Amino acid sequence: MPIAAPAPYDDQNVFARILRGELPSHKVYEDDATIVIMDIMPRGDGHVLVIPKAPSRNILDIAPADLSAVMATVQKTARAVVKAFDADGTTIQQFSETAGGQVVFHTHVHVIPRFEGVKLKPHTGEMADQAVLADQADRIRAAFAAL
Amino acid sequence: MPIAAPAPYDDQNVFARILRGELPSHKVYEDDATIVIMDIMPRGDGHVLVIPKAPSRNILDIAPADLSAVMATVQKTARAVVKAFDADGTTIQQFSETAGGQVVFHTHVHVIPRFEGVKLKPHTGEMADQAVLADQADRIRAAFAAL
Repeated sequence: MPIAAPAPYDDQNVFARILRGELPSHKVYEDDATIVIMDIMPRGDGHVLVIPKAPSRNILDIAPADLSAVMATVQKTARAVVKAFDADGTTIQQFSETAGGQVVFHTHVHVIPRFEGVKLKPHTGEMADQAVLADQADRIRAAFAAL
Repeated sequence: MPIAAPAPYDDQNVFARILRGELPSHKVYEDDATIVIMDIMPRGDGHVLVIPKAPSRNILDIAPADLSAVMATVQKTARAVVKAFDADGTTIQQFSETAGGQVVFHTHVHVIPRFEGVKLKPHTGEMADQAVLADQADRIRAAFAAL
């Protein structure tokens, strides 16, 4: 029997509002089940988030079919960001609940291109420059189109 | 077109040897497509690894069906470790290539139970006490059985 998530899904979270078009985002990919957007507090160049369209709080309550769709997009995204930034690898992270590192309570997976000798930046809460994000988003969209 | 992984799969890696029974492990779960074992250099209590049986290097080359099977097991594992340790959340990580944090080049996903106010331990390379791992493995097996 699945363990219930500690709290119910709240549809006023930032990603639900982005999915409804109530907040802007730099969207780089979309399919029937998922979107991919730039993380506005990136831990490195090209840091993006894969977000399922269906509501769920995190790994503890997401429907298995939604999780499968998310991961299919995560794989495409990893290939796209490696290509877009000529990266040497990727780091993928998914946080569930505050203790696990989660801040926005709609399931999302971080995909971060990595480069030899470059550490992840600390999660300071500092917003990235919007023009830089827009430029990186263009590069990632082009890489998705060429996959 | 998928980007090729930077190097071919090497079937002498540690997880391939564990899958063949050539090296011991604390296995807590197994199904047709995956196994779950204790991480012997844990970053916290109950840190386990979900490993597909089919060979692949990482997120860049794994077959989509294998990735889907891995993530189905990751979800079960997250629920099992939360239950086993009465955890407050989970952190899930997947590293691809050396720059991304990968050390063993057979795809694997880290599932780490998390507790309010407890940071992840640094990855020092220090081995955990085998008796402690065996005891934690027993608790996780019991939690899987009760899912």
